[in-house]
Amino acid sequence: MSSEPTRGKPVRLALLGCGTVGAEVVRLLHEQAGDLTARIGAPLELVGIAVRRPGRQRGDLPVDRALFTTDALGLIKRDDVDVVIEVVGGIEPARTWIVEALRAGKSVITANKALLAEDGGTLHDAAADGGADLYYEASVAGAIPLLRPLRESLHGDRITRVTGIVNGTTNYILSSMDTTGAGFTEALEEATELGYAEADPTADVEGFDAAAKAAILASLAFHSRVTAADVFREGMTGVTAGDVASAKEMGCTIKLLCLAERGPDSRGAESVSVRVHPAMIPRSHPLASVGDAFNAVFVEAEAAGQLMFYGRGAGGTPTASAVLGDVVAAARNRLAGTRAPSESVYAHLPIRPIGEAVTRYHISLDVADRQGVLATVAGVFAKHEVSIATVRQSGREADATLVIVTHGAPDSHLAATVAELEQLDIVRSIASVLRVEGGA
Amino acid sequence: MSSEPTRGKPVRLALLGCGTVGAEVVRLLHEQAGDLTARIGAPLELVGIAVRRPGRQRGDLPVDRALFTTDALGLIKRDDVDVVIEVVGGIEPARTWIVEALRAGKSVITANKALLAEDGGTLHDAAADGGADLYYEASVAGAIPLLRPLRESLHGDRITRVTGIVNGTTNYILSSMDTTGAGFTEALEEATELGYAEADPTADVEGFDAAAKAAILASLAFHSRVTAADVFREGMTGVTAGDVASAKEMGCTIKLLCLAERGPDSRGAESVSVRVHPAMIPRSHPLASVGDAFNAVFVEAEAAGQLMFYGRGAGGTPTASAVLGDVVAAARNRLAGTRAPSESVYAHLPIRPIGEAVTRYHISLDVADRQGVLATVAGVFAKHEVSIATVRQSGREADATLVIVTHGAPDSHLAATVAELEQLDIVRSIASVLRVEGGA
Repeated sequence: MSSEPTRGKPVRLALLGCGTVGAEVVRLLHEQAGDLTARIGAPLELVGIAVRRPGRQRGDLPVDRALFTTDALGLIKRDDVDVVIEVVGGIEPARTWIVEALRAGKSVITANKALLAEDGGTLHDAAADGGADLYYEASVAGAIPLLRPLRESLHGDRITRVTGIVNGTTNYILSSMDTTGAGFTEALEEATELGYAEADPTADVEGFDAAAKAAILASLAFHSRVTAADVFREGMTGVTAGDVASAKEMGCTIKLLCLAERGPDSRGAESVSVRVHPAMIPRSHPLASVGDAFNAVFVEAEAAGQLMFYGRGAGGTPTASAVLGDVVAAARNRLAGTRAPSESVYAHLPIRPIGEAVTRYHISLDVADRQGVLATVAGVFAKHEVSIATVRQSGREADATLVIVTHGAPDSHLAATVAELEQLDIVRSIASVLRVEGGA
Repeated sequence: MSSEPTRGKPVRLALLGCGTVGAEVVRLLHEQAGDLTARIGAPLELVGIAVRRPGRQRGDLPVDRALFTTDALGLIKRDDVDVVIEVVGGIEPARTWIVEALRAGKSVITANKALLAEDGGTLHDAAADGGADLYYEASVAGAIPLLRPLRESLHGDRITRVTGIVNGTTNYILSSMDTTGAGFTEALEEATELGYAEADPTADVEGFDAAAKAAILASLAFHSRVTAADVFREGMTGVTAGDVASAKEMGCTIKLLCLAERGPDSRGAESVSVRVHPAMIPRSHPLASVGDAFNAVFVEAEAAGQLMFYGRGAGGTPTASAVLGDVVAAARNRLAGTRAPSESVYAHLPIRPIGEAVTRYHISLDVADRQGVLATVAGVFAKHEVSIATVRQSGREADATLVIVTHGAPDSHLAATVAELEQLDIVRSIASVLRVEGGA
């Protein structure tokens, strides 16, 4: 056992980036210094902060201005740097910096979900090459301790499904639409005014942010490398006030979900389906009551059953909490001369295409109120081997609305059904198509 | 870096106890063998199972009957045992066994909440002496990955409060009282019939089980040794159908909560309050919708904000999931020649007595419907420096009911207020007194 920490010798940190999260990391390192030292068995020492504009005004950040530098690579390469914290984001130069640090045997803490989802393998390979720790708790669901449970606590179990609300902006918008009956545009405007949505909300509302997190979660849950390119992605800009009202009538609410499921593909081989899309879920589901900008991730495992992790998914301070938890772990490992469990990708499960994902659809059709309409419509479903769970018909004069909810079926069958319904003369329009999740 | 696992050499396990949890551990070790080997980098090998009656019929347990022994101590001392799993429960002989194993440098996984709460210090000391791992994820909230987040993920943050529903039996009973309006006795009978309550439910309904878990959670959250004796405990047998109805009127529900808070004591010194009692919480609180026999733990931290962990708190299979997660961690550490972070008790925070705990009361009084009653009652509250938040008065003929909810005040002031109200002539009876938690 070589694990007694060497008390006294500081663990030296380099911080890359000093925006919202970085500034909070600096503040907490300062405020919690005594506790952090006691927990680690040695003090943490911030030896440099790489930024683009070192002269920029940074309020009352409790830090010597001499620590700022524009030379990130130089900082990383310094002999006295043990742990590198990357909170810059984006693919480059973050990737080059992280790989450089890891190959040199320095532990890296990153919140960079986009990079992990696009090219996490390169980072993990560099960590293995350098014998260094790569921690990234802050990359998914902010402050919620979620990745360590997936990486460690649940390693004696088999995870079958992960369903998450991992984007606070879209959850704020959908919660607001649900509460007030507002349409998407109106709710987005409100979210922007309140600072919950960025000036360019594309990454959030089109599901890119959630898709990156889905890839990271699926990789950990299923011991396989899953990238953002493997994730089926559908944004939530098409969700209307009518969809929300229709969900309410069914006792449901609409959430932008990330889903990662293991199961057999069409040839019976074990595979993984990973997708991001808006979906109706029953109000009785634990995820349904996750409001405002909160995040929550629902995990189903064979032995553990249903688990849920809930908390703040974004914001400088919550994200800094996750970063610092990782810093403590990496610092302890360095003092003990050990490292965290490395990447676990032994399962190498293939990705199941979206067409083979089994889901349920909620379809709302405006139809001519004629005899035989339901029979014709039902025939289209039957032809594509989609079983109907419920039909609700409401008619006035010449028009009627059919609301159909299906049983589970491969997405390709459902899509083909919708495509054929669109061609029917008796179907005036398809008012909405939404997936339904969270059923038994 | 000495962390590359030695592939091939098995990690050898001894199992102490083969009841509901032990049998599930055996089954999962067998079923998941391939995955566990891949995750650890070496196979797990079960080399012995200590039981009281080796001849007992154990269904179709996938294990060689020759592994059973009555000699637990002999099994622990075997040279070829690396990791000991204790799922027997109770104080002795479990303590002797665990201490023996740890001192001999063997890692121990235990689900023994009673022992950890009564004498966890002895176990942690033995772990430090032997340089061995002591893991106990299964001791609190069953399958929910909760202790590892507290022990590791949140070590960069300062936890201010932990509020938990950690006893499934009482949560089932209270949920059922809330849903059906049944009284305690009726709801307990139903829970017993359905197997949610044991024949002797004392440990659950009197809060002993929750108090043990509260001690474990408080120790981890506040980096201090807290024992079951430090926990103020009040059972939930006194909760009536009337209390439940009254809570509903206030938009609340009643839960048996374990609470651990840090804050100043009466002299302003940092201290910890740990208690278990029934309390009203607003229906909008995330813990309010935790129904049936589920557990959930709500954690508040300075940087992370509000977090919640939800899942199954009991049952053989969920508990075995937590045990096996720890087995994987302990096995990895052995192969890497390292160990988990040791006990963190540097803060040594003192325990604040219940009288100094700040809480709110909901008090329901049957009073004479006379002029000046409210003034007299209000005067008693003022005398004890308890501020009233709301009063609701409903009267019929000569009798009236006053329902008073206070602002936060030290428990001793609240208790003195209630004691003095009992002495008033105009107070016919005090129908109920309940603490109110979960407010802003």
